[in-house]
Amino acid sequence: MKVTVPATSANLGPGFDALGLALGIKNQVVIKPSKFHSVSLRGEGANNPILKDNNMFIAIFNDFYNNLSTKKRFFRFEFVNEIPLSRGLGSSSAVIVSAIASAYAIEGIQLSKEKLLNLALAYESHPDNITPAVMGGFTVATVQDNEVQFIRKDITKSLSPVVVIPNRPISTQLSRKTLPYKYSKEDAIFNLSHASLLTAAFMSENWDMLRIASQDRFHQYYRMKQMPELFEVQKISLGNGALMSTLSGSGSTLFSIAHKQDAKKLETKLREKFPHFKVFTTTFDNTGVKIEY
Amino acid sequence: MKVTVPATSANLGPGFDALGLALGIKNQVVIKPSKFHSVSLRGEGANNPILKDNNMFIAIFNDFYNNLSTKKRFFRFEFVNEIPLSRGLGSSSAVIVSAIASAYAIEGIQLSKEKLLNLALAYESHPDNITPAVMGGFTVATVQDNEVQFIRKDITKSLSPVVVIPNRPISTQLSRKTLPYKYSKEDAIFNLSHASLLTAAFMSENWDMLRIASQDRFHQYYRMKQMPELFEVQKISLGNGALMSTLSGSGSTLFSIAHKQDAKKLETKLREKFPHFKVFTTTFDNTGVKIEY
Repeated sequence: MKVTVPATSANLGPGFDALGLALGIKNQVVIKPSKFHSVSLRGEGANNPILKDNNMFIAIFNDFYNNLSTKKRFFRFEFVNEIPLSRGLGSSSAVIVSAIASAYAIEGIQLSKEKLLNLALAYESHPDNITPAVMGGFTVATVQDNEVQFIRKDITKSLSPVVVIPNRPISTQLSRKTLPYKYSKEDAIFNLSHASLLTAAFMSENWDMLRIASQDRFHQYYRMKQMPELFEVQKISLGNGALMSTLSGSGSTLFSIAHKQDAKKLETKLREKFPHFKVFTTTFDNTGVKIEY
Repeated sequence: MKVTVPATSANLGPGFDALGLALGIKNQVVIKPSKFHSVSLRGEGANNPILKDNNMFIAIFNDFYNNLSTKKRFFRFEFVNEIPLSRGLGSSSAVIVSAIASAYAIEGIQLSKEKLLNLALAYESHPDNITPAVMGGFTVATVQDNEVQFIRKDITKSLSPVVVIPNRPISTQLSRKTLPYKYSKEDAIFNLSHASLLTAAFMSENWDMLRIASQDRFHQYYRMKQMPELFEVQKISLGNGALMSTLSGSGSTLFSIAHKQDAKKLETKLREKFPHFKVFTTTFDNTGVKIEY
């Protein structure tokens, strides 16, 4: 059995804790019945001796599996991870979502995507990464009474995401402390109106509106200050064909969208200017978590 | 020449200063060349000796007409107004938009709706009433560099708005003073995520989402406290078929949306419970301001 789950870019522009989308960067796990518990890991995190995220997968998988299964079985887990750790591309959400999906699937128990999403909430209270990880596409989400309420939309193949992944993380803890506890009415309305406009732009495929609609006053500035090169990445992106360019999650990745035909030029420019960062063009994912038997 | 302009419901739920929509309640003015300046007024405001809004129309009309016209002409203005004054249904925006449109039209000068919208900004800095008044439909709007940036969507004929118009206004000035100057991060994110979800619901015609998405923490509570019956109107609306029920603008009208087949029952219930208020079912307007020669 194979479970695949996409990377996600959340906190999209002004859409703090609300807007996100899924990317063609994937984590995959193949799970096979085995006489002993065993794990192999290739890709991102493979050189991490603590295998933190990998252990998180096993822990969450066991939480569910031990409840669902009547008899104790052992498995071999073969992970192939493309999603970088601690770079704002939703690696934790990917682990949470795929671990829960795997526990149900290995027992042959049907689980709707909506149910999966609500189960994931126990491990990640913000819905903006887990929703696109489960559902794919562009998503608007909020939580009410322990349930995610969301609307999703496929993203056209005529757009390409270009990501700039720095060689180091922004500390999420440090990053959260730097954010304001309160917002002025003016800033609150700024983000509210821009997040709504960004949502309308994705829903109506009005790509010319992305640049104006993606502006944020809630979090990007405070976080990017900790890695000031990111302002330069954003500026160069917007000056070289990006329709929008925003911090991904809480960073440190900077995420841009370009028309497909402009992506290569943008990627080349960014690679030239930031040779110490990982720069590449990927795709959008409209599928979300996927189980194959 | 005849100019018609719709009423609007702005501050839609969580969409403070950003979301609005146009209604089938209209103001109309017929303008004819005449030897003398003269005015007639029927409908809303007709028993108001100061003719405040009517004078506002003439003042704005003259601002533009005197600039556009080479020779001084006189006109007869025949107003038929359906939009009640000071009830949160966009009567000021309707006057602003129709006065500017009239001055251009009477001189035979083409004016795009986008240009009209930006001219109206000089008289009304918030875009959430003027945008649907000009464009019709559901609109998301923000202002950048003295231009309104917006996305609009037609509203289906299968939904009906039901309005409850109280017999007195909420003072806008008093009402503004009661609003917070700052919002907690939690409330700011609440409104941001719900406004985005409400936008996605209108864009994708997901009407089941309206009830959850239309919740607000920014303004309704503070304003409705000044006319506590409105909480009862809202509760009874939501308990009798309304998909959503929100304060219109800064009040005092309470605006609900129902499936067309449920509107009459809702209207009857509300009329029975609030005999001293004006209750009726109307339509959505997808046209916006309209000029007929």
